[in-house]
This record gives sequence, C-alpha cells and structure tokens, in this order.
Amino acid sequence: MASAAEGAGAPLVLLVHGGAGDVADEGVPRKLEGVRRAAQAGYEVLRGGGAALDAAVAAVHVMEDDDAFNAGYGSVLNVDGEVEMDALVMDGKTLNAGAVGVIPDVRHPIDAARLVMECAPHVLLVGEAAKRFAVARGVEAAPPGALVTPRAQAALRQAVERGDYTMHDTGGSTVGAVAIDSRGHLASATSTGGTSGKMVGRVGDTPLVGCGGYADDTVGTVSTTGHGESIIKTNLAHSIIVLMRQGLSAQDATQRALDELGRRLNNTAGAITLSNKGDVGVAFISKRMSWAYRKGNEMHYGIDPDQHCVEIVQEKEN
Amino acid sequence: MASAAEGAGAPLVLLVHGGAGDVADEGVPRKLEGVRRAAQAGYEVLRGGGAALDAAVAAVHVMEDDDAFNAGYGSVLNVDGEVEMDALVMDGKTLNAGAVGVIPDVRHPIDAARLVMECAPHVLLVGEAAKRFAVARGVEAAPPGALVTPRAQAALRQAVERGDYTMHDTGGSTVGAVAIDSRGHLASATSTGGTSGKMVGRVGDTPLVGCGGYADDTVGTVSTTGHGESIIKTNLAHSIIVLMRQGLSAQDATQRALDELGRRLNNTAGAITLSNKGDVGVAFISKRMSWAYRKGNEMHYGIDPDQHCVEIVQEKEN
Repeated sequence: MASAAEGAGAPLVLLVHGGAGDVADEGVPRKLEGVRRAAQAGYEVLRGGGAALDAAVAAVHVMEDDDAFNAGYGSVLNVDGEVEMDALVMDGKTLNAGAVGVIPDVRHPIDAARLVMECAPHVLLVGEAAKRFAVARGVEAAPPGALVTPRAQAALRQAVERGDYTMHDTGGSTVGAVAIDSRGHLASATSTGGTSGKMVGRVGDTPLVGCGGYADDTVGTVSTTGHGESIIKTNLAHSIIVLMRQGLSAQDATQRALDELGRRLNNTAGAITLSNKGDVGVAFISKRMSWAYRKGNEMHYGIDPDQHCVEIVQEKEN
Repeated sequence: MASAAEGAGAPLVLLVHGGAGDVADEGVPRKLEGVRRAAQAGYEVLRGGGAALDAAVAAVHVMEDDDAFNAGYGSVLNVDGEVEMDALVMDGKTLNAGAVGVIPDVRHPIDAARLVMECAPHVLLVGEAAKRFAVARGVEAAPPGALVTPRAQAALRQAVERGDYTMHDTGGSTVGAVAIDSRGHLASATSTGGTSGKMVGRVGDTPLVGCGGYADDTVGTVSTTGHGESIIKTNLAHSIIVLMRQGLSAQDATQRALDELGRRLNNTAGAITLSNKGDVGVAFISKRMSWAYRKGNEMHYGIDPDQHCVEIVQEKEN
C-alpha cells in the first residue's frame, strides 16, 4: 500500500476519544484497547489515500460496534429503557455537516449522520423520521432491542435507584474521531447513546454543530465528550476553534476552553483537537478520558490525566 | 407604574426581529405593526421591573399569536403538511438554556422551551416527547391542525410546485427577542415554524444554543434568523458573542459575523444583538428583516436595509 502522506504537507493523523467521565478501573483495559483499534482502523483509511471524513467515520464505526463504549451497540438507555442515539459529522473543506438526534434502531448512527449531510437539504434530523430516512437509503437497521446490553440495563437500574438522572460522571463513553488527510482536509465524527436515564426525546450536545464537534480546514477540527448540557451552553467545540483562530495551539485552546467550562458551569468534559497542521490537542477535566492517535508509525494513547503512552507500530506490509 | 431603570445602570431595552428573508411588499405593513407591538409588550414587562427573560418571552408570545409571522399560529408546514416548531430561550445570568425541536400542537413553543430550561435536567427535547412534557406541566396545547393557516398551505403548494424545498429566501419570518432588564441581566428568546416544505423531523438553527440565540451577561445577547443550515454551520449567535468579547460593538460584531456567513456559505441571514451596556446591533444580509426596539420613550423600527424609523412613545400613565 503506497503512502499518501503528500499534498498539503501536514502529516496524516487519526485521533479518537472514547468518552470523558468517571471510568471505573475495571473498564480501563477494554477502553484503551478499543480506542487503539479505532485509531488504527481510521489511520488505515488515511494511509490508503482516503478522505478525512471516511477515516473519522471508520474509526467511529469500530467504537459503535464495541460495547465498551456508549454508542451504537452498548448505548445507555433513556428513562423508558430505550436506546435513542445522537451523532454528528462535519467536513472541514465545505463546513457541511449532518446529524441525527434520538435516532432508534440503527447499527451505526454515524452513517445516518453522514447520509443527512450528503443527501438531505438539512443538517439535523431527529427521531423516527431520521431512522426512516436513513434506513430507506441503505443505513443498516437493528431489530428493536438489539442494541440494548445487560450492562446498559444495569446502569439504568442504578440511576433509578439513586434517583439521579443528571449523570454528571457516569463514564458516559461517547465516542469521537478527528482526522487530517493527505490533501490537508479535516473532518470530525462523534456518536453517543447520551446519558443513562435521560428523558425520552432528549437531544444532547453530540449532534449539535459547535457543541459535539466542529471542522474547518482553515483552523482545525474538534470532537467533544462529557456533561452534554454544559457543552451546549458553552459551545465547547466552537470555542476551541475560536481560540485556535486567535493563535492558540490545539492543546492550549482545548485546555483553556475546558477550564472555562469548568469554571462557569462546574461540570466536567473533555475534547480532542487537531490543527490544520496536524498538531494534536487532548484534554479533559473529568477523572478520565480514553484517547488514542496514530501519527506516522507511532500510536499514542492514555486514559489518566498524566498518562501518555507511545508504541511504535510495525506495519505488516513494510 | 414606577420606572425600574436602575440597578446595573444600563438602559432598559427590548429588541425584536420578525424574520430575515425576501418579504413581499404586501407583507411589510403587518410585519412592521407586529414587531412594534411585540417590542412594546416586552418593554412593558421591563418597565414594570420584570426580568429580561420574562420580557423576551412576552415579546415572542405576541408574534407567535400573529399569523404575519412564522411561529406558533401561522407556522409554515413540513413536506407532509404538518406544523413542527422549534424554540429556544437562554438566560444570560446563568447560561441556562431550554429548547424544543419539531414540537407539534402547542400554542406557544417558547413556553415549552422555557419549561425545559426550568424543569428538565436537559437543554433540548424534541418531538412528541417534548409536547407531552410541556402539556403535562401546563403549556397550552392546540388541537391538531389548529396552527395551520391557509397562507401556510399555499406556501407549501408553491414549494412543491417549484420543487424547491431548500427555501433560501422565503420570508421565513422566524421571530426573536433580546432584552436587558433593570438589574443588567440579559435574555434571548427565538421561535419558528422552520422552512416551508422541510423534511419531517428537521430541526433548524432556532433551538440550538449558539446558532438561533445566545445570552451571556458578561458580553451580550443575540437572536438570529435566516437560512438555518448556514446559521448552524457558522454558529452565528456564538460567533457574534465571540466578536463582542474581542471588543467589537454590538452592531459591528453582528454585521461582521453575517458578512462571514455570506462569504463562506453564500446564503442569507440576519440577527439582533444587545451588549450588556444596552447597545443595539441590527443587521441582515437578506433582502429584508423586520425589527423594532423600545429604549426609553423611543420606538425604533425598520424592514429595508437603510430604513431606521423612530417614534416618540406617549405613555398613557405619564
């Protein structure tokens, strides 16, 4: 397979997160394994000359299929015990975006979001109408109940017993990916089941442009995770982009926007960011956030605040 | 009635818009009459010592009841001939926000949005679930079809005949209000029926924080109108707030953010803005946008690009 690291001169980078929150120790290994698999899958698309959008969607696909994460199969449940999912994609070249909110019974909500971007004159479709639109055009449906896992049911029972549906720190495990491709184009993709015990019809931050994600080739690309309502009120993804436009690095912009969210709203969140030069930003003010990125032959990853591991990847075809 | 123009030292201001778009000449008188009535109704709340949020909601109420505008009664119809409405409120003191998307059959979607802010742990509820939540807590329901007007039906027929559902310039007539009260607090309220012939389940910019509106006591407050998908992609309301944070006046920030939207996406929009000092910004890059504001004993209003009328208001009780 030929390397496609040419064009705009920026390196190929595929950066993912597997959700900010209070991840229990026993959940750490599967999350770290999952984010690395996702970053690798997305990077393979980039290395084959694929577009940033295809790569980011491929990475999210891997995590939607993995019940270690709260997206697709393994999504948390609303107060009625149902899966209602949110997802967003954004293309940095055109600012085109597509999203779905509270969509039921599709295997890959990120595919539905992408379909909205490419085939609808709108950005955001919600509910059963979003599902009908997507499935009629080939997005894979899931039988009713097929996305519900015993773990999600247990989490809902705990929420009901605690009487706490606000879920500030539940290890929500929203997933997201950002990418820069060989032509220097950027993309963002984010997918989630929301919060355990949420009200029926609740749309979180994930499918909202500027909240759950953003991509602008002239600046950078972001995917966020954490307390959704706080991310909405601060327009977290757009705030990071604005700080980068003012000259901050991807890392400093991400950290500063999160600090501001914490200061004003006293809740937690995290975000992953790429500049249009391929510089990486990873930050969270929650207890943990799983993340990983592949850049060149290095796989970087972590989940605790000061953790930053690097592995050299031995490519089979080299 | 005592004047409440004290506290933070900023003047009381109630500023409204009645939608950006290609308003036909015959629609101008009713729109100008409607925005002035709305501005006056909201201002009365401020002058009685009421909160900015109460005042902004009162102004939107007037326009939701007036079928000269595309909100509440008189909302445009989706492709199936149904009313599905969007609304948002935001409170500048706390950054609290509440919104509803594609809500059917309530007289005042803005009341439902406010209820979400005050009584739900979420920001955005959509669809039938939003209606059930609101009506169960006292928001006035409307019988099925009661919000549908002959004019909205005619507009849908035209859209179908043209085969153009993207509706870049339909005089959409979204309504919005921003206010500053006697304690210097800010609020934003926006309500719409969306675009004529939109897909079922389409959520526009109006209920999205940072798109349809924003309010932050440390900066200012905004309500937007126009091509919804473009407003979403540029986070128009938040972009205006960011420019004001950087030192631009309400007017300059509003104009610059709209110019940027037009340059990047080649669509039209408008916005109204108040700074936390009570300075007014009104701008649009569409053919027309009806607007009005009451400040002291002056009523300002207009609808064409260079139109700015002022009337002295004779208060009955003075």
